[in-house]
Amino acid sequence: MKMYRTHNNGELRIENIDQKVKLCGWVQKARDLGGMTFIDLRDRYGITQLAFNETLDKDLSAKARKLNREWVIEVEGVVKERSSKNLKINTGEIEIEVEEFTVLNESKTPPFTIENETDGGEELRMNYRFLDLRRTPLQRNLMLRHRIGIETRKYLSGIDFLEIETPYLIKSTPEGARDFVVPSRMNQGDFYALPQSPQTFKQLLMVSGYDRYFQIVKCFRDEDLRADRQPEFTQIDCEMAFVEQEDVIMTFEGLIKHLFKSEKNINFDKDFPRITYTQAIQRFGSDKPDIRFGMEFNYIKELTNGFNFKIFDDAESVIAICVKGAADYSRKKIDSLTDWLKRPQIGAKGLIYVKCNEDGTYKSSVDKFYNQKCLSKWASYCEAKNGDLILVLSGNTISTQKQMNELRLKIAKDLSLYKDDEYSPVWVVDFPLLEKDEETGNFHAMHHPFTSPKPEDIGFLTSHPEKIRANAYDLAINGVEVGGGSIRIHDRDLQEKVFTCLGFSKEEAESQFGFLLNAFEYGAPPHGGIAFGFDRLCALMGNQDSIRDFIAFPKNNSGKDTMIDAPSRLNEEQKNELGLIVKQ
Amino acid sequence: MKMYRTHNNGELRIENIDQKVKLCGWVQKARDLGGMTFIDLRDRYGITQLAFNETLDKDLSAKARKLNREWVIEVEGVVKERSSKNLKINTGEIEIEVEEFTVLNESKTPPFTIENETDGGEELRMNYRFLDLRRTPLQRNLMLRHRIGIETRKYLSGIDFLEIETPYLIKSTPEGARDFVVPSRMNQGDFYALPQSPQTFKQLLMVSGYDRYFQIVKCFRDEDLRADRQPEFTQIDCEMAFVEQEDVIMTFEGLIKHLFKSEKNINFDKDFPRITYTQAIQRFGSDKPDIRFGMEFNYIKELTNGFNFKIFDDAESVIAICVKGAADYSRKKIDSLTDWLKRPQIGAKGLIYVKCNEDGTYKSSVDKFYNQKCLSKWASYCEAKNGDLILVLSGNTISTQKQMNELRLKIAKDLSLYKDDEYSPVWVVDFPLLEKDEETGNFHAMHHPFTSPKPEDIGFLTSHPEKIRANAYDLAINGVEVGGGSIRIHDRDLQEKVFTCLGFSKEEAESQFGFLLNAFEYGAPPHGGIAFGFDRLCALMGNQDSIRDFIAFPKNNSGKDTMIDAPSRLNEEQKNELGLIVKQ
Repeated sequence: MKMYRTHNNGELRIENIDQKVKLCGWVQKARDLGGMTFIDLRDRYGITQLAFNETLDKDLSAKARKLNREWVIEVEGVVKERSSKNLKINTGEIEIEVEEFTVLNESKTPPFTIENETDGGEELRMNYRFLDLRRTPLQRNLMLRHRIGIETRKYLSGIDFLEIETPYLIKSTPEGARDFVVPSRMNQGDFYALPQSPQTFKQLLMVSGYDRYFQIVKCFRDEDLRADRQPEFTQIDCEMAFVEQEDVIMTFEGLIKHLFKSEKNINFDKDFPRITYTQAIQRFGSDKPDIRFGMEFNYIKELTNGFNFKIFDDAESVIAICVKGAADYSRKKIDSLTDWLKRPQIGAKGLIYVKCNEDGTYKSSVDKFYNQKCLSKWASYCEAKNGDLILVLSGNTISTQKQMNELRLKIAKDLSLYKDDEYSPVWVVDFPLLEKDEETGNFHAMHHPFTSPKPEDIGFLTSHPEKIRANAYDLAINGVEVGGGSIRIHDRDLQEKVFTCLGFSKEEAESQFGFLLNAFEYGAPPHGGIAFGFDRLCALMGNQDSIRDFIAFPKNNSGKDTMIDAPSRLNEEQKNELGLIVKQ
Repeated sequence: MKMYRTHNNGELRIENIDQKVKLCGWVQKARDLGGMTFIDLRDRYGITQLAFNETLDKDLSAKARKLNREWVIEVEGVVKERSSKNLKINTGEIEIEVEEFTVLNESKTPPFTIENETDGGEELRMNYRFLDLRRTPLQRNLMLRHRIGIETRKYLSGIDFLEIETPYLIKSTPEGARDFVVPSRMNQGDFYALPQSPQTFKQLLMVSGYDRYFQIVKCFRDEDLRADRQPEFTQIDCEMAFVEQEDVIMTFEGLIKHLFKSEKNINFDKDFPRITYTQAIQRFGSDKPDIRFGMEFNYIKELTNGFNFKIFDDAESVIAICVKGAADYSRKKIDSLTDWLKRPQIGAKGLIYVKCNEDGTYKSSVDKFYNQKCLSKWASYCEAKNGDLILVLSGNTISTQKQMNELRLKIAKDLSLYKDDEYSPVWVVDFPLLEKDEETGNFHAMHHPFTSPKPEDIGFLTSHPEKIRANAYDLAINGVEVGGGSIRIHDRDLQEKVFTCLGFSKEEAESQFGFLLNAFEYGAPPHGGIAFGFDRLCALMGNQDSIRDFIAFPKNNSGKDTMIDAPSRLNEEQKNELGLIVKQ
């Protein structure tokens, strides 16, 4: 039996000196120093330096000089101590004095460099994803993802959760996001749908008595893709029976603490803070507030009224944030912030500022309307000190909160108000059960139609649906929604009432969710759960914004995999077998 | 905070006596014994007996007597020692003297009994899968599946394998089995396909340097369903770089040994035996031989020639097996075996027998043609002793081997020639690379088009493709194909030659697998792998034949989930958005 290698390229140390070894890997780079040729041999474990000495073996050195980037080679040699050590890498004290090597496969010159920072553009790297995946940063990401998966399973399995696979070929339930569908050949005219989440199945598993379920599972949504959305994505999907909100929150706070401990050696000693949805919107303008820094909202409408400043007088809300130590912001900087806020994505009308000068005076963009005394009241309300900058937006409350949320996040980023490796989790609780579509007047489920109202709010179902709070909760970390869940309805009558409130006819409810309503009549236990966005969680723990580089083979923004050319045309035979005609 | 329960129903012991506890669960059954009412409370952890004493609390007892099967209740009470203990269950020494209870949900009377042996038929149980899943045998199966998943990940992760998710929305490559396809809304007229396996992606991961990959992953095949095939099924999918066949075999033999040790406490001390494909067919008529018992094939054509028995004289092969101690098989039994063999599924023409009587004489169904001396030669060749039965089939070699394989397995089952909890793994190696379609004369890949020929056989590619042996291997346990894999091609030229041999035009190869051929030009390492049928492996380790009860929500033989009613019609809006028309 041949053996390709005795060690990997991250493994050899000073202790291995004089050992005979075999290594395999890719040629990262070659350096020719007169009589010596050095080659960095790379694999996912690290880099080991190969040395070829012309005086020892002229032919071998000549052969080595012909090796190019990304060729795959198999090497035999002896571990030697390096004369000039590189203490930045684990193998930096040794090198291999090569005695023999074989080219296992040659490589064309890659279309971009396989380095930490590459010269390849996005599109090129997607077309050659198999080469991009060779780069160390991507390898680190996928290894991190692997570890988080392993640790998640270890933790949940250790507290009696069972991983149970739910089906991928299910029934289409077209409310909410669009389903991807799969035509059935055996039952022509019928379609399966790919699951947007295993929601109803995990609820059935609770009815079946499985008690503590989880699954790391692919989900599918046929949405128009925004940046950093994927048509297929992965969830850590969980459900428990005989629990209340508090049980679910504490159980999964435990999971998140475990993951941060195991992966990043971060200890969260205290319980994660909690905030109600209403408070989160009020204080941060977001249901996933980034609480690593302050700059909370101040509502100063009452302080601004009656000074003939029409914009504020007409506004439903006037919201101010205090930027510490930013009174020296230049006019240019404030103008550029204003332009940024006016872009259609944000849609603010303008930005008012008040500089709290070091000498105790104020300089504002509304000096014409508000005197120093006025501005000092604002400053005092916002707890602004000399040297701080107050930024003010106004208008309709909901829009202004959203705009101010964007501004607050941008400034925090610009001023580096947080460290890269700092994590601030917060549970957002007491979400509204329903959202009113302002155009149609219809109600939509804020989480999904299976979410339980708070018992004390059930009375509002027929009178004031918008007032009902749900037993629903989200976990946000650093302003990123990492997970969300709820206690579910487990009573057929209540579920039917909620369906009615959401505009389902009795027939629609029965045809789409009859199996679940039916199951509720056979001893359904109280239950609830949560789902975490696995791609997002990995990106967060990897300190990156984009999820794409935590997915081995992602789709681009048009939902395409340009490397394999998917989606693509079917041949006629396939369409005939399915009985499908595609409209021109 | 309310707490539903302090313990589960499998947990309380004699040590817990006098503790105050809370339990939740389903009413399994109730017994009324005059002044005492006993209820078995069930959850997935076990059963705990609840006791209601009329003399202690008359109202509570009356309320308890109204509880019906499968109601969900929450109970508070004190652990007491039972007067009559049930040592068959873990909680059988104690019972709960109930002080208070709440009905969490009522239940209609289930359409079948929720017991180990149920009275519900297949169809009814599929319609009410959520109730069938409450039965202990199914819960045991899914818990076993969970454990095997956890242990697989633990083992592979422990030896540096990375679990990497590959995409579900890929490109259709319609050779081989049929793909399920997914119409694209954003790219109208184009379709994704669901993967039949992550084959090409795991090979790309090897090109990308990931070295040791695995994934427990759903795969999809749109085949006409035979019994116990599912349109979606789960694989343990694995791939390694810088390996030969021997490395892959030894690595995954380690995995299988680990799983049997951890789940069943079975130690395989020795290496698994290996047999070539040719030998397996020759000796057992199967490429997944059950080697728990002997009854190997004896080829006796030469001993039967020239006695005017036309059937044997005309046959390409005459194959005999020796059934130990079965000379007393009745005429009726042999007739029924003959009928069984003649069914179209097997298609034998008839069955010849030779009884080796205890007195040393022979009695056969061909006494007219073969005298005692002849028969004694057969017996001696088959190593049959007095008291044994020789069964003989004849005809075309391939068909006869297949028929004899069926007969051999049936007899072993009838005579219980193996124990239920006995496991005999065997590696079948040296598979042919190609199979010739006798009708069309075309070659098909025996495993798949990416399998590497043995280097010494590559010369046959253009001359005698049928002679090429592949670096391919299957693991069979107890006659069940548990897994299979191969060393892959990693060279563009060789891969193109194999595609040509399989009848691909250059254009077809390029359009379907261009990305892989392309990848082979950028430093593809030697690599190979294996995939295990996870559903099948679980069923095998659970000592059951059918995979269906190791899948939470399986499809029926028409590919339907009758509980949720999938597949089903789409609404017109969905079809319009996809630009699809279904032919009438």
